[in-house]
Amino acid sequence: MSLLVIGTLAYDTVETPFDRRERALGGSAVYFATAAASFGPLRLAGVVGEDFDEGHLARMRERGVDTAGVVRKPGKSFHWGGRYAADWNTRTTLFTHLNVLQDFRPVLPQHFRDSKYVFLANAEPAVQLDVLSQCTQRKFVVADTMNFWIEQYLPDLRRLLKHIDGIVLNDEEARMLAGEHNLIRAARQVLSMGPRYVLLKKGEHGAFLIGQDAHFSLPAYPVDPVVDPTGAGDCFAGGFMAAVAAADDVAPRSLRRAMLYGTVTASYCVQGFSIEDIERRGRPDIERRYAELLEITTV
Amino acid sequence: MSLLVIGTLAYDTVETPFDRRERALGGSAVYFATAAASFGPLRLAGVVGEDFDEGHLARMRERGVDTAGVVRKPGKSFHWGGRYAADWNTRTTLFTHLNVLQDFRPVLPQHFRDSKYVFLANAEPAVQLDVLSQCTQRKFVVADTMNFWIEQYLPDLRRLLKHIDGIVLNDEEARMLAGEHNLIRAARQVLSMGPRYVLLKKGEHGAFLIGQDAHFSLPAYPVDPVVDPTGAGDCFAGGFMAAVAAADDVAPRSLRRAMLYGTVTASYCVQGFSIEDIERRGRPDIERRYAELLEITTV
Repeated sequence: MSLLVIGTLAYDTVETPFDRRERALGGSAVYFATAAASFGPLRLAGVVGEDFDEGHLARMRERGVDTAGVVRKPGKSFHWGGRYAADWNTRTTLFTHLNVLQDFRPVLPQHFRDSKYVFLANAEPAVQLDVLSQCTQRKFVVADTMNFWIEQYLPDLRRLLKHIDGIVLNDEEARMLAGEHNLIRAARQVLSMGPRYVLLKKGEHGAFLIGQDAHFSLPAYPVDPVVDPTGAGDCFAGGFMAAVAAADDVAPRSLRRAMLYGTVTASYCVQGFSIEDIERRGRPDIERRYAELLEITTV
Repeated sequence: MSLLVIGTLAYDTVETPFDRRERALGGSAVYFATAAASFGPLRLAGVVGEDFDEGHLARMRERGVDTAGVVRKPGKSFHWGGRYAADWNTRTTLFTHLNVLQDFRPVLPQHFRDSKYVFLANAEPAVQLDVLSQCTQRKFVVADTMNFWIEQYLPDLRRLLKHIDGIVLNDEEARMLAGEHNLIRAARQVLSMGPRYVLLKKGEHGAFLIGQDAHFSLPAYPVDPVVDPTGAGDCFAGGFMAAVAAADDVAPRSLRRAMLYGTVTASYCVQGFSIEDIERRGRPDIERRYAELLEITTV
C-alpha cells in the first residue's frame, strides 16, 4: 500500500456534553493514520514540538505507520481546544495554538516521494500544493480544507483544486466554496473547479460521493453512544483512502466500497475520546461492521 | 390492492423562500392518495367543507381512488398556512383552521371495512383508534402522529401504538415520544411501546426503518430544485404503503423496497407546489427514479 498522509499531530482539549479531556492525542494526520493502519502500512508526514510524547509515534510505528516524515521542532505542538453543544452538531473552537505548525514547510523524505495515494489533510492551500509537487508518482490525491482557507485563500485553493482527484468537504464548506445552498448543485459546482470527485461529509447524516461518472449516497453507521466526534472526518478519509490504496483501484465501484470503509472507521472513531477506540480496531472489527453497514443499507 | 387511507383533505397557504400559494390543494390524505394511486386503486376517507372543489375528488377518482369515504359537511374545509425558512428545514405554522375537521368522527363505508392495508394519517389518537376498530380485516396498519398529540394525548397515543404495525415519526417526534436524543435509541424505545416498525423520516437526510427484525437506512433522492416540501411525509407514506399493498408482502425485504418507493414519491412531491408534480407521475416515472435511487445507494 503506497499511501501518504500529511497533516497535523496535535494535542486536543475537548469538552462534550458529558465529559472533558485535556491535551488528548489528536490531529488530522494522527486520526487518518490510525484509521488507515488497519488496511496496511502507510507514511506519515507532519511536525511536532518538544512536548510531543515519543510514545505516540512508537505506537503508530508498531501498527505499520512510517513516521520518517514527522519532524520535531523547538517549541510546543499544535494545540486545539473545542466544545460540542448538547445536540452534538455545533462545535465551538475555544482556542487554536498553532505553535510549531506556524510557518512549517514540509519537505518529504526521499522514500516518501513515490507515494501513489496521497491525502493532504486540512492546511494552507499553498502548503498542500507544495507537498503535492514533491509527490512525483501520484495516482490519486485527495485534499481536505476548511472555511478559513475558502474565505481567505481562495485563489490558492482554486489552484490546488486543479491538481487533485478529490476534495473532502462538509456541507457548510461545500456551500461556501460553491456559493450555492443546494448540496448536490454545490458539489457539481466544485467539480467544475477541477477535482474529479467531491466527498461530502454530513456527519450523522452520512456522506456523498459525487463525480462526473459517479453519484453515491450513504447513510452513517448508527453509533450509540457517541462519545467524541473529534477526528471523525479524518478517520473517514483514512478508511476511504486506505481502502482505495489497498485495492489499488480508483474505479467508481472501488470508491463506493471505500466510502463504506470510511464510514466504518469514522464510526469507531466517535465511540471513544481521541484515538482510544479506533486505535484498538483491527481488520476483523472493520470487516464485521462493513458487513453490518452493507446489510443496513442494501435493499 | 386493498389499501385505505384516512386523513385530511385541505386547502394550504404556503410560503417558501421563493414563492407563495394561496389555498392550494393539500391535506395528508390527498398527498397520500395521489402518491399511492400510481401503484393501484385505493380507498380514501375524510371530510371536506362546502368550499371544497368537487373537481379535486373527480380527478382522484379518475386515477383509481375510491372517494366514497369522503364526507361533505356544512362549513369550510380544513385550512392550513405555513412558511418555510430560507434553509427549508424550519417550518412555521402561520394558522390552522380546523373548520369541518373539528369533532369529525369518521364512519367508514361498509365496503371499506375489509381493507388489509390501512394508513391512519396524523389525527387525534382516539379517532385513529376508532377508525382502526372499523377495519376488521386489517393486516398491516401504519399511523402518523405529531408533537401536539404526543404532548397532549399521550395515553391515547400509547394505546394506539399497541394496535398498529408501524408508526411514522420525524426525528423531533421520535425524540419527544421516547424522551431520548439518540435517534436509534429513541426508535428502539418506541418499538418497546408496541409497534413492530418505526419509520423515521429525516427529510433531506433520508429515512430509517427500524424493527425487531429489520434495520434499514436510506438517503433521500437528491432533488434539485426543491419547490415545496409540504406533503413530502405523506407522499413518502403513500409510496411506501402502496408498494407494500401492491406486493401484498410485509416481509422485511418488501418493506425495504417500499422505503425506496416512498423516497421516490416524496421526491416528486417536493418538486412542485401542492400535488402539481406528483399528480402527473405514473408508474414508469416512479420505476425510472427507483432504479436511479438504487444505483445511487448501491455499492
